[in-house]
Amino acid sequence: MKQERVYVNDVKKGQVFIEGWIHEIRDLAKIKFILLRDMTGVVQCIIKDEKLMKKFSDLSVESVISINGEAKPAQVKSPEVSQKEIEVEIKEFEIISKAEKLPINIHDKDVETGFAKRLDYRYLDLRNPKNLLIFKIETDVLKAMRDFCIKTGFLELCSPKFQSAAAESGAEMFSVDYFGKKAYLAQSPQFYKQMAVISGFERVFEIAPVFRANPSHTTRHDTEFTMFDAEIGFINSFEDVMHWEEQWLAYILEQIKEKYGKQIKEVFNIDLVVPKIPFPRITMEEAHKIIREAGIKVGEDSDLDAEGEKALGDYIQKKYKHEFVFLTLFPWKVRPFYHMRPKDNPRVTNSFDLLWKGLEITTGAQREHRHDILIKQAKEKKISEKPIQWYLDMFKYGAPPHGGFGLSPTRVVMQMLNLPNVREATFAPRDTERLTP
Amino acid sequence: MKQERVYVNDVKKGQVFIEGWIHEIRDLAKIKFILLRDMTGVVQCIIKDEKLMKKFSDLSVESVISINGEAKPAQVKSPEVSQKEIEVEIKEFEIISKAEKLPINIHDKDVETGFAKRLDYRYLDLRNPKNLLIFKIETDVLKAMRDFCIKTGFLELCSPKFQSAAAESGAEMFSVDYFGKKAYLAQSPQFYKQMAVISGFERVFEIAPVFRANPSHTTRHDTEFTMFDAEIGFINSFEDVMHWEEQWLAYILEQIKEKYGKQIKEVFNIDLVVPKIPFPRITMEEAHKIIREAGIKVGEDSDLDAEGEKALGDYIQKKYKHEFVFLTLFPWKVRPFYHMRPKDNPRVTNSFDLLWKGLEITTGAQREHRHDILIKQAKEKKISEKPIQWYLDMFKYGAPPHGGFGLSPTRVVMQMLNLPNVREATFAPRDTERLTP
Repeated sequence: MKQERVYVNDVKKGQVFIEGWIHEIRDLAKIKFILLRDMTGVVQCIIKDEKLMKKFSDLSVESVISINGEAKPAQVKSPEVSQKEIEVEIKEFEIISKAEKLPINIHDKDVETGFAKRLDYRYLDLRNPKNLLIFKIETDVLKAMRDFCIKTGFLELCSPKFQSAAAESGAEMFSVDYFGKKAYLAQSPQFYKQMAVISGFERVFEIAPVFRANPSHTTRHDTEFTMFDAEIGFINSFEDVMHWEEQWLAYILEQIKEKYGKQIKEVFNIDLVVPKIPFPRITMEEAHKIIREAGIKVGEDSDLDAEGEKALGDYIQKKYKHEFVFLTLFPWKVRPFYHMRPKDNPRVTNSFDLLWKGLEITTGAQREHRHDILIKQAKEKKISEKPIQWYLDMFKYGAPPHGGFGLSPTRVVMQMLNLPNVREATFAPRDTERLTP
Repeated sequence: MKQERVYVNDVKKGQVFIEGWIHEIRDLAKIKFILLRDMTGVVQCIIKDEKLMKKFSDLSVESVISINGEAKPAQVKSPEVSQKEIEVEIKEFEIISKAEKLPINIHDKDVETGFAKRLDYRYLDLRNPKNLLIFKIETDVLKAMRDFCIKTGFLELCSPKFQSAAAESGAEMFSVDYFGKKAYLAQSPQFYKQMAVISGFERVFEIAPVFRANPSHTTRHDTEFTMFDAEIGFINSFEDVMHWEEQWLAYILEQIKEKYGKQIKEVFNIDLVVPKIPFPRITMEEAHKIIREAGIKVGEDSDLDAEGEKALGDYIQKKYKHEFVFLTLFPWKVRPFYHMRPKDNPRVTNSFDLLWKGLEITTGAQREHRHDILIKQAKEKKISEKPIQWYLDMFKYGAPPHGGFGLSPTRVVMQMLNLPNVREATFAPRDTERLTP
């Protein structure tokens, strides 16, 4: 019977059995150290026994080993060590899986090793404790997202990723050979989350992969990523959706700050701010003015580009001391056919984006639920009706007013930790070139 | 300012504002009723006012309406009504979205309407309260699955669905046109959950769609479905994985029984059983004997077919009074190359299936983490190494012993509620023919 394993950060004084990866080997003249790493942290282990010293040369960095030892108050406190109170004197160790010489240096981010090579050996790159922390935080971001939905009466949707037709434009859809026919991969669960509301689920969320055949290489886009989607029935206006979203985001940031605030400060040097409610809201018309005044060109009825978003984020931070801003009433020209338009101003839509620190993280809107107007808007946008007939027909049988939004959790983590690239927060990123690992 | 909406099942005596779908219209000589349905249930609403009676002819079944009224103790208790204490006298109503004549009868399951037609109008079919209940339960099944993972120290994985090569056989993989190259859609996150363990995440779970180009039509298979996957590092044997899984399943069933036990009894006539731990375990060798004794043919070193699973389930129920059984030590012949084999018996694998009420719901195993043996096993199974080079290489740099399993939450819901078809628990099912809605 093997001893009960204890995680490195839970080690207390006394006999202990720990397992993990060799984070570092320190072979000094008279004494030999190992830093042992598991999912909780790193602890220093010392070999004093002469017989064990002989076996020491068999060790290599990143090998998996198990250690029986005695935990004592720490003598040396290395900055690499997370378990600072204790060090373990090794009585016995076993090499469980010996590592060959590593192709990348996992301790160093991007200094010796380029990003592409790091991704080639992502299974080693992720062993860097800073990278692991990103995914621990992501786990809790996803949990907080879902918990708030459940608390507020949402059902979970598992919508199909195979679709018969492009939902919006079709320009960026992947096609699949589907038993001799063509199917498309979902760019978004848009039509299906609306279907769920109309099916009587009323309020739904989904966290699932979406697929975009986007040929561009930017730090913010992948061909595949995880998306959070919400859709809420029986709303009075898109304000209800924004209000739900700001509460939801404040809840998420509160949860993360409580659990990881200290570590985020230590590792990423960021003071996580739980945003005040309500978030500032400005119309796109106002946003255009502000951006033009900042000396940035923006076309009439146009969406903002990355530079415009950044300038607006800076303005809001300065004026409102707030990291978030809702942009509202986007021009009809830049929104899809199913966004509702206000009665008195058909040039705009009852829609919004949300920016965080000058980056768009959400697109949302009230949807058009009136069948006749929806058909009119589809015609105006020159949408061919036949491929989406089922979607259009759905509105003939009792559809409540509804609205929703989408947000990429990965982008949220990127902005939260000021990561330089969304791929840093993606387990195994996919772009036009990369399909492995 | 609109009044605050109250859900039908939360209605108390007094003034009330409710919204929902018209479940039924009852137009008697002297009095007119509406049954109003929202996501919580159905309540009876009465029109007594003469002026309102005139507007009554505008109403149609499944229209969305809002009602201002006065809630009073119920006079009539119809079996369709979930809010049994209260009925609402309508003071004012507004038709929000008028429904045309319905193409299917949503009150009737499969009697008038065939299953295919029900799926054509799935957005109406799902309005049947029995169907909605299935997806409420599914929401809580998914929640309980994740909650137990988080409680026991798992990280959440978002693995890529685009893959460069078939993970196992490739026979049932969908191919995608990927910027002029070919990509494949993930049949399972198998390699990536192992990658996460080896990357230092140690224990991971994922709930995500998987894709199987399975041309067969059965009641248990779809071309796309939601899969739960778990992988656990630093195990001593596959017994550790089974032990975790049985605790996890007992937790899920406990949660569901507590919240929905009464409704499940009422609607599906099922007494949900929280299973005792440990679940029975029998080897495949024993299972073969039992099945042969039941008069069913089973080839040497073969997997069980549906008939065999059923017979075994009955035997276990009779002998152990248990709905679950772990089948262990599957023949090497029917398991993939990465399953570990016991030292003393290379003819079998350290693997298991889990049956619930005579249906397989899980396949799991300890994985081979020793690079040299893994390569040997790949060769023995005639797996071509090149397309999965990254996966094989991963084991050269320190891989802990690990194991895991997969399970379809939809199948769990199907078995839980004795549904005749897995599609009843799938929001928008996909098969070889169906891509809409």
